[in-house]
Amino acid sequence: MKNTFGSSVTITIFGESHGPAIGCVLDGLTPGLEVDEEFIAKLLSRRRPSSLIDTPRREPDNFRILSGVFNGKTTGTPLCIMIPNENTKSGDYLFGPARPSHADLAAHIKYKGFEDYRGGGHFSGRITAAIVAAGGVLMPALNSLGIYIGSHISVCAGHTDRDFSEDEGILLEEIKALNDKNFPVLSDETGEKMIASIEDAAKDHDSVGGIVKTAVLGFPAGVGEPWFDSMESILSHALFSIGAVKGVEFGKGFGAAEYRGSEFNDLFSLDGDRIVTTTNNNGGINGGITNGMPVTFSVAVKPTPSVSRPQQTVNFLTGKEEELEIRGRHDPAIVRRICPVIESMTAIVLADALVTAYGPQVLVKGKAIWNTDL
Amino acid sequence: MKNTFGSSVTITIFGESHGPAIGCVLDGLTPGLEVDEEFIAKLLSRRRPSSLIDTPRREPDNFRILSGVFNGKTTGTPLCIMIPNENTKSGDYLFGPARPSHADLAAHIKYKGFEDYRGGGHFSGRITAAIVAAGGVLMPALNSLGIYIGSHISVCAGHTDRDFSEDEGILLEEIKALNDKNFPVLSDETGEKMIASIEDAAKDHDSVGGIVKTAVLGFPAGVGEPWFDSMESILSHALFSIGAVKGVEFGKGFGAAEYRGSEFNDLFSLDGDRIVTTTNNNGGINGGITNGMPVTFSVAVKPTPSVSRPQQTVNFLTGKEEELEIRGRHDPAIVRRICPVIESMTAIVLADALVTAYGPQVLVKGKAIWNTDL
Amino acid sequence: MKNTFGSSVTITIFGESHGPAIGCVLDGLTPGLEVDEEFIAKLLSRRRPSSLIDTPRREPDNFRILSGVFNGKTTGTPLCIMIPNENTKSGDYLFGPARPSHADLAAHIKYKGFEDYRGGGHFSGRITAAIVAAGGVLMPALNSLGIYIGSHISVCAGHTDRDFSEDEGILLEEIKALNDKNFPVLSDETGEKMIASIEDAAKDHDSVGGIVKTAVLGFPAGVGEPWFDSMESILSHALFSIGAVKGVEFGKGFGAAEYRGSEFNDLFSLDGDRIVTTTNNNGGINGGITNGMPVTFSVAVKPTPSVSRPQQTVNFLTGKEEELEIRGRHDPAIVRRICPVIESMTAIVLADALVTAYGPQVLVKGKAIWNTDL
Amino acid sequence: MKNTFGSSVTITIFGESHGPAIGCVLDGLTPGLEVDEEFIAKLLSRRRPSSLIDTPRREPDNFRILSGVFNGKTTGTPLCIMIPNENTKSGDYLFGPARPSHADLAAHIKYKGFEDYRGGGHFSGRITAAIVAAGGVLMPALNSLGIYIGSHISVCAGHTDRDFSEDEGILLEEIKALNDKNFPVLSDETGEKMIASIEDAAKDHDSVGGIVKTAVLGFPAGVGEPWFDSMESILSHALFSIGAVKGVEFGKGFGAAEYRGSEFNDLFSLDGDRIVTTTNNNGGINGGITNGMPVTFSVAVKPTPSVSRPQQTVNFLTGKEEELEIRGRHDPAIVRRICPVIESMTAIVLADALVTAYGPQVLVKGKAIWNTDL
Repeated sequence: MKNTFGSSVTITIFGESHGPAIGCVLDGLTPGLEVDEEFIAKLLSRRRPSSLIDTPRREPDNFRILSGVFNGKTTGTPLCIMIPNENTKSGDYLFGPARPSHADLAAHIKYKGFEDYRGGGHFSGRITAAIVAAGGVLMPALNSLGIYIGSHISVCAGHTDRDFSEDEGILLEEIKALNDKNFPVLSDETGEKMIASIEDAAKDHDSVGGIVKTAVLGFPAGVGEPWFDSMESILSHALFSIGAVKGVEFGKGFGAAEYRGSEFNDLFSLDGDRIVTTTNNNGGINGGITNGMPVTFSVAVKPTPSVSRPQQTVNFLTGKEEELEIRGRHDPAIVRRICPVIESMTAIVLADALVTAYGPQVLVKGKAIWNTDL
Repeated sequence: MKNTFGSSVTITIFGESHGPAIGCVLDGLTPGLEVDEEFIAKLLSRRRPSSLIDTPRREPDNFRILSGVFNGKTTGTPLCIMIPNENTKSGDYLFGPARPSHADLAAHIKYKGFEDYRGGGHFSGRITAAIVAAGGVLMPALNSLGIYIGSHISVCAGHTDRDFSEDEGILLEEIKALNDKNFPVLSDETGEKMIASIEDAAKDHDSVGGIVKTAVLGFPAGVGEPWFDSMESILSHALFSIGAVKGVEFGKGFGAAEYRGSEFNDLFSLDGDRIVTTTNNNGGINGGITNGMPVTFSVAVKPTPSVSRPQQTVNFLTGKEEELEIRGRHDPAIVRRICPVIESMTAIVLADALVTAYGPQVLVKGKAIWNTDL
Repeated sequence: MKNTFGSSVTITIFGESHGPAIGCVLDGLTPGLEVDEEFIAKLLSRRRPSSLIDTPRREPDNFRILSGVFNGKTTGTPLCIMIPNENTKSGDYLFGPARPSHADLAAHIKYKGFEDYRGGGHFSGRITAAIVAAGGVLMPALNSLGIYIGSHISVCAGHTDRDFSEDEGILLEEIKALNDKNFPVLSDETGEKMIASIEDAAKDHDSVGGIVKTAVLGFPAGVGEPWFDSMESILSHALFSIGAVKGVEFGKGFGAAEYRGSEFNDLFSLDGDRIVTTTNNNGGINGGITNGMPVTFSVAVKPTPSVSRPQQTVNFLTGKEEELEIRGRHDPAIVRRICPVIESMTAIVLADALVTAYGPQVLVKGKAIWNTDL
Repeated sequence: MKNTFGSSVTITIFGESHGPAIGCVLDGLTPGLEVDEEFIAKLLSRRRPSSLIDTPRREPDNFRILSGVFNGKTTGTPLCIMIPNENTKSGDYLFGPARPSHADLAAHIKYKGFEDYRGGGHFSGRITAAIVAAGGVLMPALNSLGIYIGSHISVCAGHTDRDFSEDEGILLEEIKALNDKNFPVLSDETGEKMIASIEDAAKDHDSVGGIVKTAVLGFPAGVGEPWFDSMESILSHALFSIGAVKGVEFGKGFGAAEYRGSEFNDLFSLDGDRIVTTTNNNGGINGGITNGMPVTFSVAVKPTPSVSRPQQTVNFLTGKEEELEIRGRHDPAIVRRICPVIESMTAIVLADALVTAYGPQVLVKGKAIWNTDL
């Protein structure tokens, strides 16, 4: 389905970096969800470049909701959000020399030379603003059901943040704190080291990658499908659609390879009436279906490909090798700005999975449906 | 779409571990593909337990093609493969105590108690035989287009295999050799150590996990979509549908976090007329679209959850904690048997992506379409 | 999606007239639905040729449920039904001369000569047995929610049956009576005339068409979508997938062209607390969404294309005109046998629409969900 | 998929009658298609009310392409067209009394009272402007491949237009002439009578329905699928998504019921090298697949529900019966304005079916692909 994703709640994205506007259409929404434009603006501001460590391109993100909202609430019909592009400097972009680690060459072959190459066109990270705006529609609905999504930069430029707490009460506080942070880390001390290293890279006209870790709290057990629509499948599908992502793992992920089964297995126990696991190595998902524990996953983010250094490349117009020095405005690390994108993608996937499992009213009624439904 | 996957070429799976049969329906196939039942049987035999390190459950996998093949070739209409279940011992399975790291509890909540719990029911790894059979239909077609898929156990039980060669000629030989191996590793010496460690785990009534690395050679550039149907998205979607998979990464994957952009970027150069990259840290995919280099990815496989040791759990019928000792027949490591499953999933995804990009005839005509299509 | 249909509850069909078996996979089913194999057999028997006016090919339709049912109830995982082909006489079929009004030529072009031409292959009406079997799984679930589907032959061979009653109580009795009839008409006297005319056509080695009218009683208001998934859209999509169908209309259908708005509009009134319409010219659907009145539609069925008379055609192997006299076993009228197919398709579409609107549990809980959901 | 339709080329629509804007997103487009904004404007003008027989609401339809076009050509990435709503008079609309034959009540139940009721909201015929704009993108591409789509008002207010010619050369001229007509009929004399009758109905504060007949010339044989994605299925799905449509028939349609098979069957013959049929009772489709003859179908359009006369209804806010007199601006007959909508829907479906059958490049290369592809 190319630029449309989801089963029951779907998102369709459109736009190019230097075209008139980007945006998205959310469909299958429950009618009656409150749409908080201030929250959307706040979430967009977390994604917006705002400091020395981000690109100097500043977009006001003056989004406009074109449809699907009436009297401040979703109508249940398609909700289109448009975000005009305002701060575009197309002159910075060349057509021909393929920027290394960018989509230029692949796009040129796929689109037969008709691609809008300015600023990466439809491949631009700019499009993620539309995804964040969509996340901003769904996140408050999830929160109102007791579902919270938070992410932190767990690894960046050689520094490692501490882990999420295993205590759900503390985890909730951590998530809420991260949602308010400009540079989302659990240890601000480590965060400062990361920022310093990012600034170092920027001074070297270079960039760094990182790992983002996400936790979802309060999501009900029993959601997802055994095979092709396992929660891991649909979450990874959504997460890998973000350009810079090169890895996704759930729970212990690649670390699982080092365990024996007797150590890795999450043993079941009772916490009052609730069935919990004593560890959460599976990241809250068994057999593709949520088990009621926090859903946890990590996302590997490659270093920003645009570095202002001479790089060898091939010009696909001339068919010859040449040296390229990328100009334009770029992020030395997108690991900070990608956090709200990951959270928004997660919100979209989880809302979709809930509606598939329990019907559209679940986004309003939450526990009243999923608990009595057994 | 739950048990159906794909855009142009789709697979629908069905079956339970202890029901009458499992199987799949492949749709959207190009008419005229030769169906090599011997090859399918051979691929199934690579997945079948066959040694000390696998489960003692032995299934002959006497698959039967019910439709979609006429005079030995695909008709273009749905191809249904049925594999009867023959060697079932349902008495080994209990209903109530949730097996740790299994789907039992999650399934019980999702399916409201109506799940077929015998041998994991629809969650059983048994279903992967249908996926392998489907892979066996598509793999020869890909091979005939010069596309080769191979995988090796890169990490298992503390041992690490050597990497795929960066030379494409050698890589082709490696893939062909792996496709013929019962225990697919590049270094047989390392493989023997892995086997010994798996046997050790089995003797301890325990299990081990591992990492499988896959390479695809000869896949054309320009296939995939920018966002939701990026090659990473659809490959990871398919790979995470396999029960034991907890991580997927492309190219350097999580290792990318340690690089600076200037080091990580794959520089373009010319190899004769062909544009190549001097490294392949992105795993052959830029911006979600193939760039013509080998597509490489790794899959994290958790240790088999079924270990014949006492484990604490909760019985969801009684609502009480209890100790569980799993009986039945299990694999101390599924990392060997999962290789043809990963390769088959990959074949299905790549065939689908090719048909989406170039139309159904591409599976017959290959280069004649994708090269002249520009 | 070619051979898969539906949004939440989906059906995938496979098989050829003269292959080993036909069948279908139902996915997205609510767990816990009772599966009544006797009812399925009875519904299949209504589709089976059984009299002078049907084809002499007799298939026992010994269907087998391969998956998705456990202890007599749906598990919620894919339910595969296989029906072996037993009574095949492939020798009757020629390859080359395109049978008029059949798919032979179109299929030959589409499938590049690789089609299974025997008995129409995948195009055969034989495949509808799988659809009826699927309907047989869902119909009892709908009935238990108070939803009833009935159809009668309203026009055949120049004879016109009387209309369904506008009184819902009488309509229910009519539907129940039709469901038990071998030749479903409201007026048996008219039915006998139809049968006599069909027999006349058979004696002339000819065939006749007809119109089937269907009514759905008890379906809740508020189901369907405004545009692309209007109830008319998805029902017509399903109905036109049946080979012989050349027209679908809802309510007054084509007759609407003769009305003025003031006459055609269905006025709203109260029947106790319930909002009803005083007429039902819209066939229970406004703006693509059900309004709580009976859903009514008519289906035009063309005369069976296979007539045992000399017909002019072109042989696509030789590229020359020739005269063709079709042999084999054929129905002089499929209008009788198509009724359970239409009802089954309707049941599949309605079950799907209900689950999309209210979540999977609606197929068990019905009114308890759709009434309190407002 | 609710507001998204199509397999390979998809359209997503959004908007409400009185919201900020309506629009659509086209995805899966071949890169390099010329986008002719003047043609889009012309097609929109055919849909726009422009005479005594249409609603006095006049919208300039100043559409804006937000994405997917670069240097006047499609890029292959999503093409979003936005059309602002400018001439809105929301004060005319009441909430509570269900307008007969409108979606008000059904929508109120479906959307739980959160629907945007002004001017029918998302149900408004206004949305069809977005569909026509999408058609305006695809129609020139089809024309350049030799595929032409035309429709005429075959029945309106008791008057019947003459039929399309069976001669393909004449048919082409008829289609071209119809595409330029403000009131598309083959016999302008009959058209004047229709207009007079529509004006009569308008004077009576009433409305009329009609039948629109469409012909597609030049579409290749071998496109479509045997069952669920038969050409009839996907065309009717699209056509029934238009609010006022209550019937769709192909070829002879409901008239087929009156034929015997020996009369109805379209006999094959040779026209030079080309295999044709001597009649076209099947409307160019056999077994769901095109046979190379013109694709013909008729669409039944109900009388505009909004009539400015007192009508009995129920107010769903008070739960009481009341008399309603609809104000606002309405069409006495939408049969004229619906023609470009039907043609646009047809263009979208045919472009999608072509791409599914032959790959995206077919929209540029046409015969060069579909003729040599055998």
